[in-house]
Amino acid sequence: MTDAARRWPLMGMGPDRTGRPQPRVGMLAFPGLTLIDLVGPQAVLNGPMRTHLLWKTTDPVESDSGISITPTMRFDDAPDRFDILFVPGGPGQAELFGDAETLDFLARQGAGADWVTSVCTGSLILGAAGLLDGYRAATHWAARDLLPLFGAEPVAERVVIDRNRITGGGVTAGIDFALTLLVHVFGEAVARTTQLLMEYDPAPPVHAGNVGAAGPEIAMAALAVLGPVAEMSMAALQARADRFEG
Amino acid sequence: MTDAARRWPLMGMGPDRTGRPQPRVGMLAFPGLTLIDLVGPQAVLNGPMRTHLLWKTTDPVESDSGISITPTMRFDDAPDRFDILFVPGGPGQAELFGDAETLDFLARQGAGADWVTSVCTGSLILGAAGLLDGYRAATHWAARDLLPLFGAEPVAERVVIDRNRITGGGVTAGIDFALTLLVHVFGEAVARTTQLLMEYDPAPPVHAGNVGAAGPEIAMAALAVLGPVAEMSMAALQARADRFEG
Repeated sequence: MTDAARRWPLMGMGPDRTGRPQPRVGMLAFPGLTLIDLVGPQAVLNGPMRTHLLWKTTDPVESDSGISITPTMRFDDAPDRFDILFVPGGPGQAELFGDAETLDFLARQGAGADWVTSVCTGSLILGAAGLLDGYRAATHWAARDLLPLFGAEPVAERVVIDRNRITGGGVTAGIDFALTLLVHVFGEAVARTTQLLMEYDPAPPVHAGNVGAAGPEIAMAALAVLGPVAEMSMAALQARADRFEG
Repeated sequence: MTDAARRWPLMGMGPDRTGRPQPRVGMLAFPGLTLIDLVGPQAVLNGPMRTHLLWKTTDPVESDSGISITPTMRFDDAPDRFDILFVPGGPGQAELFGDAETLDFLARQGAGADWVTSVCTGSLILGAAGLLDGYRAATHWAARDLLPLFGAEPVAERVVIDRNRITGGGVTAGIDFALTLLVHVFGEAVARTTQLLMEYDPAPPVHAGNVGAAGPEIAMAALAVLGPVAEMSMAALQARADRFEG
């Protein structure tokens, strides 16, 4: 933990509703994840909360952009429950849809967590673990049609809260998701302080952050990039959904 | 390289002004960096560009939030020049201000790069390497007063371009910085496609991204968190600045 993180308990926030000074966040760190899906929320949450990167081993895991990160906790060493369970998205999810060990771990942890959360196509992984059946949820704009495979209702919003599920839209929505979580767990002062520390005062130089603003030509270009990723996921996703229905 | 990254050359963007299909970005990955300073821009740039994480060794490096990443290239194995040199910030910078090997590496690479860039207090590191003398530059809001130590003129903007220097403000400004770089190197279509892929359509749930919006109470809370980080950097920073002046 860094000096900055150590300072948080000194800020007089007091314990959150769980009675612990630093709620524990278990964050899935799987091979082929989209790294900023994980690092955006972790940057927001770490300090006010205590974050752990979960995988089967603690060997470095390669993300979809070539950066490798080191998980901090094995599934087998995880506590019975985390206060918050978080799942990012990324092309590596194709492997997870058929990975009973990981989906069972998520299902078990999701049953006990105060908050069950995701960003981007992490909601498909939550869905495959049976954790979004009957819930409204967000996901990456290009993946919304897939949520009903697992009984979830897709919602075209940046952050969707349904009971104790909080799901974010694509990639950069993770920062807005995590600030929203801070508001719910600690209140606005902690969220605002974190926002200022991260100077989160966005000023995009172009304006194509959603399909409507981007227009059809840019949307087609984006889908051309996403095509192979979607193809990788689709067969495994359908197989899991068939089991889910059955 | 992921499938998504491989698709970029198929999008008909053609070579950039350097004549290469994928400009090379050398990104400093030092112990104690603020990980999202690096991962934000890397998520934007990787694909259209080819990113490399540079450090003295390729052993995992621990970031300020506890996540370790693996550098992909040693200083000794770096090419003579990168098209873009990039430096993130973070509390570990305290060590860098007195680290001749790293500052000499940056000075040498900065002399040859098309673009010399930074996010957050990475501009202080560029300054310590002698690369911002006489330039206007951005940095984290809490560090602006330190830029003149190295002959730079602080500017309270999210992204500052002065000749071939592009510097971003604190932490999350890295995403806006990197989209700005894409506009300059490739034009708006690539920047807009990237923005849509990352669903960068920010919607912060609270509004305290700058000191004015945050107000004095939140600003004081943020400074209390940053205090120990600033103290760590200050002595080394002053020592380097004295050498810079001398």
